Parts: sequence; structure tokens; C-alpha cells
Amino acid sequence: MKPIRLGMVGGGNDAFIGGVHRIASRIDGSFELVAGALSSTEEKSKASGEALGLAPDRCYGSFTEMAKREARLKDGIEAVAIVTPNHVHFPAAREFLKRGIHVICDKPLTSTLADAKKLVAAAEKSDAQFILTHNYTGYPMVRQARAMVAEGALGKIRVVQAEYPQDWLTTPMEGEGLKQAEWRTDPARSGAGGCVGDIGTHAYNLAGFVTGLTLESLAADLTSFVEGRQLDDNVHVMLRYAGGAKGMLWSSQVAPGNENGLKLRVYGEKGGLEWSQEDPNYLWYTPFGEPKQLLTRNGAGANAGNQAASRIPPGHPEGYLEGFANIYNEAADVITAARTGAVPEHLLPTVHDGLDGVTFIDACVRSSARNAAWVKV
Amino acid sequence: MKPIRLGMVGGGNDAFIGGVHRIASRIDGSFELVAGALSSTEEKSKASGEALGLAPDRCYGSFTEMAKREARLKDGIEAVAIVTPNHVHFPAAREFLKRGIHVICDKPLTSTLADAKKLVAAAEKSDAQFILTHNYTGYPMVRQARAMVAEGALGKIRVVQAEYPQDWLTTPMEGEGLKQAEWRTDPARSGAGGCVGDIGTHAYNLAGFVTGLTLESLAADLTSFVEGRQLDDNVHVMLRYAGGAKGMLWSSQVAPGNENGLKLRVYGEKGGLEWSQEDPNYLWYTPFGEPKQLLTRNGAGANAGNQAASRIPPGHPEGYLEGFANIYNEAADVITAARTGAVPEHLLPTVHDGLDGVTFIDACVRSSARNAAWVKV
Amino acid sequence: MKPIRLGMVGGGNDAFIGGVHRIASRIDGSFELVAGALSSTEEKSKASGEALGLAPDRCYGSFTEMAKREARLKDGIEAVAIVTPNHVHFPAAREFLKRGIHVICDKPLTSTLADAKKLVAAAEKSDAQFILTHNYTGYPMVRQARAMVAEGALGKIRVVQAEYPQDWLTTPMEGEGLKQAEWRTDPARSGAGGCVGDIGTHAYNLAGFVTGLTLESLAADLTSFVEGRQLDDNVHVMLRYAGGAKGMLWSSQVAPGNENGLKLRVYGEKGGLEWSQEDPNYLWYTPFGEPKQLLTRNGAGANAGNQAASRIPPGHPEGYLEGFANIYNEAADVITAARTGAVPEHLLPTVHDGLDGVTFIDACVRSSARNAAWVKV
Amino acid sequence: MKPIRLGMVGGGNDAFIGGVHRIASRIDGSFELVAGALSSTEEKSKASGEALGLAPDRCYGSFTEMAKREARLKDGIEAVAIVTPNHVHFPAAREFLKRGIHVICDKPLTSTLADAKKLVAAAEKSDAQFILTHNYTGYPMVRQARAMVAEGALGKIRVVQAEYPQDWLTTPMEGEGLKQAEWRTDPARSGAGGCVGDIGTHAYNLAGFVTGLTLESLAADLTSFVEGRQLDDNVHVMLRYAGGAKGMLWSSQVAPGNENGLKLRVYGEKGGLEWSQEDPNYLWYTPFGEPKQLLTRNGAGANAGNQAASRIPPGHPEGYLEGFANIYNEAADVITAARTGAVPEHLLPTVHDGLDGVTFIDACVRSSARNAAWVKV
Repeated sequence: MKPIRLGMVGGGNDAFIGGVHRIASRIDGSFELVAGALSSTEEKSKASGEALGLAPDRCYGSFTEMAKREARLKDGIEAVAIVTPNHVHFPAAREFLKRGIHVICDKPLTSTLADAKKLVAAAEKSDAQFILTHNYTGYPMVRQARAMVAEGALGKIRVVQAEYPQDWLTTPMEGEGLKQAEWRTDPARSGAGGCVGDIGTHAYNLAGFVTGLTLESLAADLTSFVEGRQLDDNVHVMLRYAGGAKGMLWSSQVAPGNENGLKLRVYGEKGGLEWSQEDPNYLWYTPFGEPKQLLTRNGAGANAGNQAASRIPPGHPEGYLEGFANIYNEAADVITAARTGAVPEHLLPTVHDGLDGVTFIDACVRSSARNAAWVKV
Repeated sequence: MKPIRLGMVGGGNDAFIGGVHRIASRIDGSFELVAGALSSTEEKSKASGEALGLAPDRCYGSFTEMAKREARLKDGIEAVAIVTPNHVHFPAAREFLKRGIHVICDKPLTSTLADAKKLVAAAEKSDAQFILTHNYTGYPMVRQARAMVAEGALGKIRVVQAEYPQDWLTTPMEGEGLKQAEWRTDPARSGAGGCVGDIGTHAYNLAGFVTGLTLESLAADLTSFVEGRQLDDNVHVMLRYAGGAKGMLWSSQVAPGNENGLKLRVYGEKGGLEWSQEDPNYLWYTPFGEPKQLLTRNGAGANAGNQAASRIPPGHPEGYLEGFANIYNEAADVITAARTGAVPEHLLPTVHDGLDGVTFIDACVRSSARNAAWVKV
Repeated sequence: MKPIRLGMVGGGNDAFIGGVHRIASRIDGSFELVAGALSSTEEKSKASGEALGLAPDRCYGSFTEMAKREARLKDGIEAVAIVTPNHVHFPAAREFLKRGIHVICDKPLTSTLADAKKLVAAAEKSDAQFILTHNYTGYPMVRQARAMVAEGALGKIRVVQAEYPQDWLTTPMEGEGLKQAEWRTDPARSGAGGCVGDIGTHAYNLAGFVTGLTLESLAADLTSFVEGRQLDDNVHVMLRYAGGAKGMLWSSQVAPGNENGLKLRVYGEKGGLEWSQEDPNYLWYTPFGEPKQLLTRNGAGANAGNQAASRIPPGHPEGYLEGFANIYNEAADVITAARTGAVPEHLLPTVHDGLDGVTFIDACVRSSARNAAWVKV
Repeated sequence: MKPIRLGMVGGGNDAFIGGVHRIASRIDGSFELVAGALSSTEEKSKASGEALGLAPDRCYGSFTEMAKREARLKDGIEAVAIVTPNHVHFPAAREFLKRGIHVICDKPLTSTLADAKKLVAAAEKSDAQFILTHNYTGYPMVRQARAMVAEGALGKIRVVQAEYPQDWLTTPMEGEGLKQAEWRTDPARSGAGGCVGDIGTHAYNLAGFVTGLTLESLAADLTSFVEGRQLDDNVHVMLRYAGGAKGMLWSSQVAPGNENGLKLRVYGEKGGLEWSQEDPNYLWYTPFGEPKQLLTRNGAGANAGNQAASRIPPGHPEGYLEGFANIYNEAADVITAARTGAVPEHLLPTVHDGLDGVTFIDACVRSSARNAAWVKV
């Protein structure tokens, strides 16, 4: 199979997530990066592109220029990865969608709920695919967990405990020239949610992916602990799902000792599951009244979803990049299938998942502004 | 030193916590059990007492009878352990306090807030000591944690995450003749809180013990997942402490795979701490920007409180019974000191901690009844 | 049941293991300490005894004097705990055995193989029971493991990996006035084995207890890493068992970061087991081709041996002292039964296990002296 | 930088390690696979090559044909990855080395000691680089560990404990058509060592890489537990290093519950280190007398080697493929530098490390044949 020709918006020299997307797109050989609007000026974009081996004439100063020209090229990009700060997701995605170029977009979907709704409309109008990189859903054990819940291994779900603590914003890093901190704490670029948008939404998405539950209402207490910070850096949420399940969600960027502590625990009438992103090759399964089981990636007890998302035998750990690459890999399947019109069923996060995430962020911000009152979503 | 003469109310043949109190009182040889109102009838009490080696004439059919007679004996009990269901704590404690007999009472303090207040008054009027067995505060690593926070190792506290999941009430055990389940799910004996009173209050107490923070308000979402259960079996609470710290508390008795998962995580401006009851000989200390440290009981880095609460060298684990015995041991010191009038400073949970706990339970129940609205405590 | 009247040889104020024996004898209320030859002079013995509440006239200056007088007392001791340095075990035990007083003796059995054989003879001649405190066999999960192997859950055993690393002798502590280090590194008091006798023998005993295998030959490489140390402080052994199983054993007192890292892993044709003393409430069971199972003390999947050795529900950890107390508790059963002549089957380590251990130490020392050649045991 | 043109010998459709090499070569974009002798016939090779997007005329039926033709092509391969069973390593590598094509070769170096020596000679005569994929040395925490030992953080090394247990050969898989099992248990293809050559050599190499110690002698007890198996499936070795350090090494393929349990523990006069391949983002550092430290990949306390080998921030786990890719990445640097003649210092395993490994295997086999006698290496 020929690799899919990929462009990238954002991801210049100083960026973090762009490099992750590039590795993820490369691991399984399904994509080839051929163009980019990597930075905000043509000059910087060319400099970044050169280091990546891009042809200079395919390094653009803006996503609009890139979308226009690539759409006309015979060998123009088939898909674009959007890896900018949040507020650029919507305008950039719109440009490519309307030209039939598939979009792989970082989360959260947009920086405002209004933009999110417009982007859903744009995606629905387009023939192109829209894929959101809620990358944690690509981990093999997460796939295993989802299937186990769907098959009823846990019985009816009662309790969801989701958390995502970090510590890198414990001090006011945004005032010390760290770009990653600057835009994430800036409402103009991040949107109204800080920590809740950056990582709370990952925890929320993961809980929904695994359990299949639909959120009905929430009460959120957002805090900015670091003096002068404009956005929340700690998030406490109580959740009520349709059907009666209840949940709690904690995300924080000021919890010293936590690197990327995304963790999900789900309990039903018949059993429980526990998964931790920092040790992603394990999944605890605790059927009520029986010994605890430690399932492993591609190991004894692995189901089809676990195996399909694994490259190598058990005991040789796969990590974050492989999980991310699973999203890209499945995106490649979908995009390839779309060439002939028939998009297969898949587990990729869609634009609707993106809207769901932005709705969650918006509800958290609204609730918190009303003294953490319960709000419907 | 001669062992303190101890009586016991409750703790007959079918009970659980009575046996724990007896072992705890025996480990360090500071108490000798000599009398008991172990069951609700004299006959049963004598049967239970015989198995424990008590003299038949010191096995009583009621705590009132026991209080009256023992107070008159020359070698009557100096202290009593009250290990009954919650609703008996207050009337029993009152009888002994008014006769100057020291009371060691299981938690929660009482089954109602009104009783709790009366008991505080009774304790304040009495010359006898009142000690509440919030036993988890006796663990060496908990003592270490408290001292570290007090000394500023974490800086100002921002975030508290407390949890206590269990799974033993996942199914309606109270309908299957399990006494431990019966009274815990019965409002008449437990009070208005189920899970929140039984174990949520432990998590709340532990958080306060370690951080020294004072709760200002909370929002609680209590649920009874098991059909027909009268009291909550799952508890979600958001906390706001004086001074700006925020917290979350989860306790559950329907989370399969959890035995006694009491866990506390505390984060401040300078570092974090994490402790888990099921692996109590360890304490994670995570100074911001430095490698994580795993402190051990009586091991390298142990402070005075850790060492004082330890019996044996590091690596030979001490457990729940030793932690419980630390409460008894310290109680013995206090009681012995009280003989001469000068009660030393100590870390034992008091009647005021008990009132604080019942206030917490009451606030949770009130909040939950108002759709998890914020309530002051 | 009336507690058994217990005496103690050794265990004065500076000692470590004496205090452990006392707590262990007290936890379940089956023994009462009433006499002691706690130190090497009557004066010191009385001082130590006073702190323990012993009557002054039952604090002796020598074990011989104690044995003679207590044997004549109407309420003399029924059993004696010998908790001295190794070289005293034999002469002390002999005195009590020949007077029909039951002996509970610390390990290793003796400081020489010759003494061990004599002690076996003395025990066989006596009506009294002889119990060796290889205390790690008292842990509930160790009991579970032994039963699982016996029932064939692992199939035929192939591989045994036993280890017991510590770090407290990393530096020459014996030169700094630490009594525990002094006698343990002194051949006259310890015997010819240092680390191998002190803790290697525990690992060896545990492997045999769980697997039921009989050692045939070994090759041992003993090292004294600390300059000037007379006895080994690091032990490497390869093992060959009857029936074809092979093993390795590592014990060390110079491995920084290890407190009491006793660990056993056993693998058979059908599955494996793994247990670690520092986290004793867990046992990994790994049936080949199936998910790993984490069994817990008194939890789901606990067998009869596990339950019988547990005092409290799962998730409330029991530790070293409870495991030690299980030995005392079972010893009490045996001693009580012996009053009427019928000693029940039990799992207590016997004088023969003690001889087996001293034979192991002796073989290690002989092998190492011959450049770690294979020697028969 | 233009990717290095890479060929591959072995790695056809049924193979395991070939796919790993391909991903590793692709992750950082430093190589492009352009040719292959992927299988033993041209037809199969073309079929495998097509799936990988290779041009049909660059899919060869033998490595000799490939070496000859690619050496003449203007855009022929610059480097070749040899990923065949062991016995092919030597003849294949020789062909490419003598044509100046760089070789990246799987371990062990060869299937016989004689071949290993010839290959060293061939590599020394060639201008091309020879790189052995002892891939575990590419993990960031392994790099950290090596540097810490070199800088003296542990003081003089005393004890090394290395192990690599697996369980996949617990039953006679080689008789059930599993190719991976077939050649690994066949002396003609594997060499005289089975488990010891396949994974024991990894553990041995890792110990040497981290500690810098030189082995002097060993005593090895190799066993074939599975009936009918020609090569060892369980390996016990005692090690003596120059300078007095001692070690033990266990590798097994019949230890149920172990997937790829490579683990290294090193203890010196001042501290210890512990690393486990299955959880590779952590490294325990235990300075004597201080709290244990848990170092993380690219996290607080990461040294230069750790950081250089990391792609993404701490807490997002990197795994086996990234560690493997670090070898490829560093190989690319060396190969690129070799274009201009100046090969920089590097940490890549060389042909001499390969000879060292085969010497270890040979010594283990010789020792075991002489009843596990000590042999010099």
C-alpha cells in the first residue's frame, strides 16, 4: 500500500505535539509527510520543514495557502494533521474539509462551543473524514476494557472514577518563557478551560469510550491555584450519567509528583476494571468475589481489540507513541477505504466526540461560575 | 507498669471489631481485659466472656449494670472499650464517663449529630479521658506524613484526594444474614449515613489528621446502588477547606476488587504525599522538581513520629493491628498519666474529632438530600 | 483456655528478637510470660524483667538455674522461648528438654552441625515439644502457597528462585558497637555461616516449606565484601533437588535499598507462584496460558490454610508480627494437646527442619571453601 | 538529512524480529527500507517485499545476490539489517562487510565461537560499521544507570543480579509448528545454547553495559526441562568479575507468568540500582542510608543519557520499540558520520560485544557439560 500523503498545520520547531504526530504517522509506515504550514510565517515554516526533509515549495506560511495549493496539486496532500493551539483548530479544519482533504485534528476540538458546532456542520457537509486524536483510546488495554464492558463483563455500570493529574504547572511556568505553558494558560488560545480542556477532557473522553455511558449533568469546581493564572489548573467534577451511574473526575496540573497520571476505574454490578496510562500494558480486571486478574497487552486473556492494537508480543512494552500510532493507523484504513467510498466501522474519535468534549468543558466552566451548581449537558 | 484494667461493651462472639480491639489492647501488654458487657443478654455475654477467660461475675448483661458495679469494685475497670453498633456509643459512653471511667470508643462517635453534641458535653464534664479509635491515624507512615505537612515539607496545601473503596456490599448481603452488613445498612443503628458513616468518615478524618486543614463546606452526592438498601453505599464529595484548599472524597462499598482501599494524596505548593492503607509501610514523598522518594516504616528518612510508632525494623511489615495497637498504646500512656492529673500532649482522636466526623456525615446527608448542593459545616 | 506459662532465655533490654517473640506470644493471648533468664547476669536479668512485669524471684542469671527451679515450681513455666545468639541454643534447649519443658527456639537451630545432631537426639528423647521459629512459614499466603503446590496447582516443580537481600551490614557496623551486628559476624557466636546462617537459611527453609522438595546437592559462593569481616555477607547458591528441580538462592546483607527482601518464586509444569515478605498479604498465581491472578490474605480465592492463619478481613494488612504469632498460636495448640498426650498434625518447623537448615549452612560453607564445588547434603 | 538506504536479510512474512527492526528503523525517520532478501526463495522474498512496498527487482532470493547487486547500484543500500536465525548471521554479515556495506545485526553475534572470531576479523578488516542490536541498552533508564555507575554513584560494585525469565516454551511449542520455537530449539540454527543464547546473553550483556565489569569466570547449570528438547530452556549461572564483584544470572523460558522479565539489580559500596524491562520508564536508585528514589524517563533527576534517549515528556511511556529505535538512531548517526570518515564515540554494541556474548554462551555450555564447574572466559 502506498503511504497516504500527509500535510501538517503547526508542529514547528518549538512545538511538542507535532513531533508526536509525526512519529505516530511514521511508525506503521502508513503516512508520508510531504507538506506543512508548520509555523506562523513562511520563513519559519521553511526552516522547520527543511529539518523534516520537506520540499521548500511545500512549506507554507499559512494553512489557507496550503489548503488552496495542495488541493490543486496532482500529488497534493490527501490528509492534514492539525496540531496547533486550540483556537486554530476550527478555522484550519474548515479550510481542508471544504476541499475534501481528510483532517486529523488534535483535541480539544475547538476553543469555543460555537466553533465546535460549526465544525460539526462543516465535517458533516464534507466528503472528507474528520478524526480527533483522543489518542489514549488507541492503547490496546483501553480497547480491551471497552470490549469487556460492552460484552457485559462488569454488568451494569455503577461508578466511574477518572483522573488525570500532572505537576508541570505547579509554579507559574507561563511567565518563564515556556511556550507550552503560555498558550495553555491563555484564554484566547486555549478557550475558557485550562486544565479541564487540556487534560480533563481526555479523562472524560476515556471514561465515555470505555463505558459507553452518556453524561447527563455535572457539578464542577475549577480552581486557579497559581497566582495570576487566568485559567483553571485544578478540576474537581461530580458526574451523573444516563441510567444512574455516577462518577468523579479529577484533573490537575499542580499535583507534584504526577507526570501524566491518567487513570480510569470503572465498577459495575459484577466486576471492576482499572487502567493507568503510565503503565499502559496492564489492565486489572476484578470480577466480584473472585481473585483479581492482571491482564496484559497481547498476553493471556487478551481479546481481539487488544491483539489488533498490539504490534509485538507481551512483556515487551508498547507505549504512548504506539497508542498514538494506532489512531493514525486506523485513520489510514478509514482514509484508504474512503477512496472507494465505503468507510468501515471504526473506533476512532469523531467530530461528534469532539463536540461532546467541548460541551463537557463548557459545562464545567458554566457550573464552576455558578458555585459548582449542577448543570445539564 | 501494671496493665490497665479494661472492660468491653459489645464484641461478643459474632462481632468483628471487638476482636480487633482486644488484640490491639494486648499487643503491647498495656491493657488487661477483665470485664465485659459483650452481648445483649447476660447469658450470651457470659458465653462470650468465658471464651475470653473473663470471670463469670464480671460478664454483664448490660453496660449500665457493668458501669455501676465496676465503678464500685476495688479492682474495677479503669477504662472501657465501646465496640457496639453506632447507636449504642452515646448511651454507653455516658454511663462510664459519668463514673470517671475512661472511654475508648469506636467511630463514628454517635449515630446522630444531637447525640454527638451531648457526648461532647458529657466528656467535657467528666474527669475521664475519651478516645476515639480512628485507628488509621496510628499507622507510622501517617504519623510521618502529618509531621511532614506540619513542618512545611509540602508548602501550603492546595489539593486533597481521599478515598476509601470497598466491595463487600456489592450485593445485598444484609438480606443474607450477615450481621456486619445488617446493622451497617440500618438507619436505626448506623444513623443517617451508611457508607459515608462507616468508612467515608475514616477518609475524612485521615485527611484532616494529616493536613491539619479545617473543612468549610462540601457538596455530596450519596447513592444507594443496591436495590432496597436504605442507606448510601457510594459517596462522592467535593470539599472546600479554610484557606482555599480543595478536595475530593470517594468512598464506596460497591466497588468490586477493592478490599479496604483507604488512600490519601495531598499536594501543596512544594510537594506531594501519597499513602495507601493496604500497603501501609510505604509513603511516597514527591518534592516538586526532584525524584520521587519512597519512605518506609522505620527506614531511611523516618522521622520521630514514624519511629515512635514502629515496633520492629524496616522491611518487616507492621499492619492494621499494630496501627490499631498504637492507638491503644498511646491511650494507655494518657490514662496512666491521668492517674496523676497531668495529661500529656498526644495525637489521639478526641471527642471533638468525633463531633467533627459526625458533623461531616450530617453535612453529606443534608447536601445529598438537596441535590448535592453546597452546605456549610 | 488458660494461657500457657512461658519463660524466656535471652531477650534482655538490648535485644531485638526477644521483643518480637514476646509480642508474638501475646497477640492471641495464648501465652503469659512469667519467668526469664533475660541477660547474662542476674542483675541485668532482673532489670529487664522488671520492665516486663516479671516477679523478681523469677528473673534468673542463667538458663540452667531457671530450668532447675522452674521445673520444681508448682506453677513453673510450661514452655520456654530461646532467643539468644545461636551458640546458646543447644545448651539452653537441652536443659529444658530434659526437664520436660517445651522449647520454642529461634533459628538457626544451633551454631554447629554437631550440636544440631545432638539437639535432635535430645528432642527425640524428651516428652516435650520442640518448635523452631522459622516464622515466615506462618504467613497466611505462605500457607496458601504450600497447599497449592501440594494440591498440584503448579504441576511438577521445575525451578525455584529464593532470595533474601538486606542492606544493614553494607558498612562495618560490627565495629561501631551495634550488638546485633557484633554477634552475627562473630563465628564463635553465629557459627561458620554469617549471612547464610542468619537469613539464607530462612530463604532455604521457605523454599522447602512451600515446595516440599528435598535438596540433594548445592554449589555455594560465599563472600565477605566488607573488609575485616570474618563471616560471609553475600551468598550465591545453585541448588539441585531430588526429582530434578533446580534452584538458585541469593542472600545478602550488603545490598543497599533492601530491607528484608525475602522472596520466593516457584515454577512448575502448569503454573507459577510468587510471594514477597515485604508485601506479605499478596500471592501471585500464574497458571500457564491464563491471566495472572493476585490472591490476597483472607480474600477471594483464599484456601483453608490462608483463612486459618488470618485474624481480620482482607485489605486490612497483617504483617510480620501476626505471622510470627501464628507460629506461637499453633505452638500453643500443640503444647495444649500435648498435655493430654495426643499431638495433632501441624505445620510448625521442627527440630528436624532445624537440622536440615544447619546441614544447608554447613554444606554452603564446605562448598564455598572448595571453590564453590558441588557438595551433597 | 536524507534517510539511510537500508536492506534487510530475513524478516519475511512469518518472522517476528524483522518487523521490529523495520519499525525501529522508521520511528525517527533515519532509514528507508529499499531492498531485501527477506526469505529463502526469490518468490517468497518478493511476496514479503511487495507487502512492504519494496520494488520487485530489489527483492532477492539470497543475501549473496543482494550484496553483490546492491553494491554495484548507484543508489544501492548503505546498510543492511540481518534478522535471520543465528547461524546465518556470520555468512551474511561477511558478504556485506567485505563490500563496505554497514551491518546492523541481531544477537547473538553467531551460532558458534569460531564464527564469532571470524566475524570480528571480517569487521576489523572492513571500512563498514558493525552494530549489534543488543537493543535493551537503548532504553533511556539503562543509559541513565550506566552513567550513574560510571560516575561512582554506587561506589565500587559488589553484587550483580541479572535475570530474564519467559514462559512461552513451558510446553513443547517447537513440535506444534511455531517457527519461532523451532529454530530457537534447534542446535543447527541456534548454536549450542538455547535459552542462554536467546535471552541469557541479553541479561549478561545488560549487566556488563551498566556496570562496565569484565567477567572472569562462571559456573553454569543449564537444564532442558521439556522432554525431548535438545537445547537448554533454563539457565542458572554464578559469575565472578574482575575486581571481586560477584553475580548471579537466571534465564528461563519455562517460568509460567513471565513474559519478558529482563531485570537487573546492581549493588555497590554506596548504593544500588534496579531496572525492569517490563516497566522500563522507571529506575530505582537506592543510596545507602537514604530514602529510595524512583527516577523516571526524562523526569526529575534524569541525566543527559536519559534525556538524549527520550523523545517525549515523562509520564508518557516509551517502550521496547523506542528503545530499539534508539539503537537504529544512533546507528544512523554513526553511519552518517562514517561517510566523512570520523566515527564519533558511541554506546552502540559492537562486534566485540558480540564476541563477548558468544564467549559467554560457550563458557556456559562448557561449564554445564562439566557438571557446572567453574570455567574461565
